[in-house]
Amino acid sequence: MSFLDDISWNSDGLVPAIAQDAVTGRVLMVAWMNAEAIQLSVDESRAVYWSRSRKKLWRKGEESGHVQQIKELRLDCDSDVIVMQIEQLGGIACHTGRESCFYRVFENGEWKTVDAVIKDPKDIYK
Amino acid sequence: MSFLDDISWNSDGLVPAIAQDAVTGRVLMVAWMNAEAIQLSVDESRAVYWSRSRKKLWRKGEESGHVQQIKELRLDCDSDVIVMQIEQLGGIACHTGRESCFYRVFENGEWKTVDAVIKDPKDIYK
Repeated sequence: MSFLDDISWNSDGLVPAIAQDAVTGRVLMVAWMNAEAIQLSVDESRAVYWSRSRKKLWRKGEESGHVQQIKELRLDCDSDVIVMQIEQLGGIACHTGRESCFYRVFENGEWKTVDAVIKDPKDIYK
Repeated sequence: MSFLDDISWNSDGLVPAIAQDAVTGRVLMVAWMNAEAIQLSVDESRAVYWSRSRKKLWRKGEESGHVQQIKELRLDCDSDVIVMQIEQLGGIACHTGRESCFYRVFENGEWKTVDAVIKDPKDIYK
């Protein structure tokens, strides 16, 4: 019996994983993991996701260097969502070059971008 | 053009919504919203979810009194996840009677329950 057997996978064999900054508590991103991705995340203490668009494992930071070092993993009561406390290397989680993927706030009926780009994606993904 | 049109719904017409304590930053729960649930959440400034098991709208706290008052709504770069900053009335988000649904930590190869039950569910759902 593995800890992976406790997880309730969706019909694609995936669970969403929330990456939260271990120091500030900010939610940085949400991506998906399959069993192999979670096993690798545990083994390597870094976030490894399953890319639904590319249909392959995605070691976060493999291109950008923006590795997420895992400090803690939690599972919810329904066993279908994971929260990770992480240290975000480079201070950038989002592919847009921002700290967090959640850079748009609902204001006056629309989603308003409120966070600055820290680094141009052209300089991140060369 | 509504702010709802900006959202990338999954094949069931849903997006996951993360409820985060606006003061402590703790992730309390994750549930799903359809367009009507998000519209109602905005209109009423309280979390309204879509219950996938009961297949109906679920005004969080309607039975338990554990209403989630929304302070801020954010959308991620892919437009398919929402993060809400909320005030959790009663200090309990989880149906198990705990503050957060994420009460199990990965330790030594298993998920270990580390958070206490604040209130017996039998006394919450009468």
